[in-house]
Amino acid sequence: MTEISIQNCLKSNVGAFGLSPADIQSAGKALKAANLSLDEQRRRHEIGFFDLPDNISEAKKIAAIAGKWRGKYENFVVIGIGGSALGNIALQTALRPWTWNLMSASQRKGWLKIFVPDNVDPTLIGGLLNTLDMSKTLFNVVSKSGTTAECLANYFILRNALEKKVGKAKANDHVIFTTDPEKGYLREKGRKEGILTLNIPPNVGGRFSVLTPVGLLSAAAAGIDIVSLLAGAKAMRERCANSNISKNPAALYAWAHTLFYKKGRNVHVMMPYSNELKDIADWFRQLWAESLGKKTDRKGKTVFVGPTPVKALGATDQHSQVQLYIEGPHDKVITFLSVDKFGTELKIPSYDKHPLGGKNLGQLLKAEENATRDALANEGRPNLTVSVPEVNARSVGELLFLFELATAYSGEFFDINAYDQPGVELGKVLTHKYLSA
Amino acid sequence: MTEISIQNCLKSNVGAFGLSPADIQSAGKALKAANLSLDEQRRRHEIGFFDLPDNISEAKKIAAIAGKWRGKYENFVVIGIGGSALGNIALQTALRPWTWNLMSASQRKGWLKIFVPDNVDPTLIGGLLNTLDMSKTLFNVVSKSGTTAECLANYFILRNALEKKVGKAKANDHVIFTTDPEKGYLREKGRKEGILTLNIPPNVGGRFSVLTPVGLLSAAAAGIDIVSLLAGAKAMRERCANSNISKNPAALYAWAHTLFYKKGRNVHVMMPYSNELKDIADWFRQLWAESLGKKTDRKGKTVFVGPTPVKALGATDQHSQVQLYIEGPHDKVITFLSVDKFGTELKIPSYDKHPLGGKNLGQLLKAEENATRDALANEGRPNLTVSVPEVNARSVGELLFLFELATAYSGEFFDINAYDQPGVELGKVLTHKYLSA
Repeated sequence: MTEISIQNCLKSNVGAFGLSPADIQSAGKALKAANLSLDEQRRRHEIGFFDLPDNISEAKKIAAIAGKWRGKYENFVVIGIGGSALGNIALQTALRPWTWNLMSASQRKGWLKIFVPDNVDPTLIGGLLNTLDMSKTLFNVVSKSGTTAECLANYFILRNALEKKVGKAKANDHVIFTTDPEKGYLREKGRKEGILTLNIPPNVGGRFSVLTPVGLLSAAAAGIDIVSLLAGAKAMRERCANSNISKNPAALYAWAHTLFYKKGRNVHVMMPYSNELKDIADWFRQLWAESLGKKTDRKGKTVFVGPTPVKALGATDQHSQVQLYIEGPHDKVITFLSVDKFGTELKIPSYDKHPLGGKNLGQLLKAEENATRDALANEGRPNLTVSVPEVNARSVGELLFLFELATAYSGEFFDINAYDQPGVELGKVLTHKYLSA
Repeated sequence: MTEISIQNCLKSNVGAFGLSPADIQSAGKALKAANLSLDEQRRRHEIGFFDLPDNISEAKKIAAIAGKWRGKYENFVVIGIGGSALGNIALQTALRPWTWNLMSASQRKGWLKIFVPDNVDPTLIGGLLNTLDMSKTLFNVVSKSGTTAECLANYFILRNALEKKVGKAKANDHVIFTTDPEKGYLREKGRKEGILTLNIPPNVGGRFSVLTPVGLLSAAAAGIDIVSLLAGAKAMRERCANSNISKNPAALYAWAHTLFYKKGRNVHVMMPYSNELKDIADWFRQLWAESLGKKTDRKGKTVFVGPTPVKALGATDQHSQVQLYIEGPHDKVITFLSVDKFGTELKIPSYDKHPLGGKNLGQLLKAEENATRDALANEGRPNLTVSVPEVNARSVGELLFLFELATAYSGEFFDINAYDQPGVELGKVLTHKYLSA
């Protein structure tokens, strides 16, 4: 089961810069209000992500769709950006080997290679054009509005190459849209041309959409057990239906971070000690930044609030960032993502009687994690640890839902709307202006 | 030529939160002192990175070594971490297609695939063991001290697999060490067993070592023009030998960031609008964090100083981080890395008379960059732009040296030692303790 430890957030472990047990327990009233508010928003169907773990039958349908592609196609390309890409990447990194796209079809047991070109850089898309055999490739165009410029631009370019290879008539067999159930360019086009089109619930924002078809389809195409993913999310949801802060991991995560933010810690680092979990930290960046970075609170008061999420990776970043975390300003809270048991064990052979000989590689990584945690605490640097027994579909589902809920709680604690992004509108207008110029 | 624009750092563009021209010109005295101090350190041979661009003959030797591998081997694995990996990754991402390792030998013109497994995660190394044909693989073990635990652990495991495949006798032909010229495990071993061993100058710290054999050998193995890389670095060094702040890009970069840091902007974002430059932002993270994150200044006074570097990517992070950058707290300075002309042009085809039809993909990316820059300025958010005409070995050399020099200048402006990392020592001791337990 996913566990959260905040021992190294407390004064007892990190000294003056820590929280007191009373600070933690002071959440009582705020947590009660947050639970009421979230329940109310959920009843009004404003926030749909809460209900996604129950969509087991939809997950089974998606798995069945992907099952038909197995052995038939080689590549699955997700054409999406932001919330239409980050969850896909996180699932792929967590639950498939990092060498997946280099493996043969038989090593992949017929499941598809996954590509997520989440930018409009011509060198990125050009590389894809030079690499993919279009006749063996599926394209999943993912845009909630169905109108995202980056997404359509890439789609048009890739579609053109696809048509050249397989012909106009057959191109639609290689395309799946994931979009709003009713409106937008993709929905209309899908309807008109009979393209398989999956739904994104209108009340689920892009950054909370990993457990909708947005994230589930590519995962299923790579053979990931998406039903277990939902089961893990559901288990976490149930654990977090608790008004005791100590027994509600999401609320505890949010509360500790809110308190530290108010004490001037504006940098929130997520540092998995696991390459498999590293892109969960990247996915979390969007969730935390876009949800909590707000100019005004819900009363309309100007607040300019928002912690800056930073992704790091242990042990790698011990050789890059930890010097700063240990000696720099007191402006950070660090979350370790920790794995009890690695999916692979590798023994370090004995050469020249080197003391590393005979240890497991995972032991070294774990020793480095423990050492870094202790060293940070020793220097009065607050940190917390979220640990999973092992990385699998269920535990990843738990983690994803934990952080989504923690984001929702943080929105409540900051009294802001965690589900909009008004700050990016001007950029869209200006992009249009520059593009027309 | 690489250009730097700080227009959007000025009050004239961003209002009250900006700098005045007088703030910029106030650098005069500090810059003079910094130049004197850096010259002095250079004369005392304490900081060797200044002199690396002159090592053209060594670069040619390295290119000749790599040339012999062309067509003979398939994979080149860099076994290193931190400063022994980040520069390699940055060069590979910038100067080779992102699909390089998926390309056939003929597409790669016989040059080698590059792998940089820079962690001790067993799933990472396990994936490599399952993927590589050891008989066609070279291993470059890179450690300045020759004793880095992560590096040796990975080497022992990979060496064992190599010996099983090619036999003990031939294994040494597949191994290259890059380490201290005199001492350490790797140097001794290399001497004893006749393993090709390249030098890291003792006065060049890991994070400043990309232009030594540390970064150059893997680049050359992938066919990158390392002589042009040095030429670019040299050109930047010459431009920055200027005591006029406006004409010294490195000093200007450092001075603007120092001023903003002192005004409370503790988060320094680097946001390339180019997938090719994205890992330069990651490489820069180490440079900036480890060099400037310091507890004490050079007089021994406790200062707890250090900006937190954050890597972002445009346009991708417009859909993740820009909401925070525009509406969140006034705690950031953002650097755009900008490319005038992309290496590939891709026209967006016309479908359904969509307004994107007929534009180039690079135009869209450029419009998004301009729009984001304007939107940030409009909200009073300081940002600067470092632009290159195009991404090639020479311009990348310019960029790398620009940021190394900017780091050196920042160290002077903060009056700290930018070349040590005392904060990570405790972690090493504790790792040893946990590993022995």
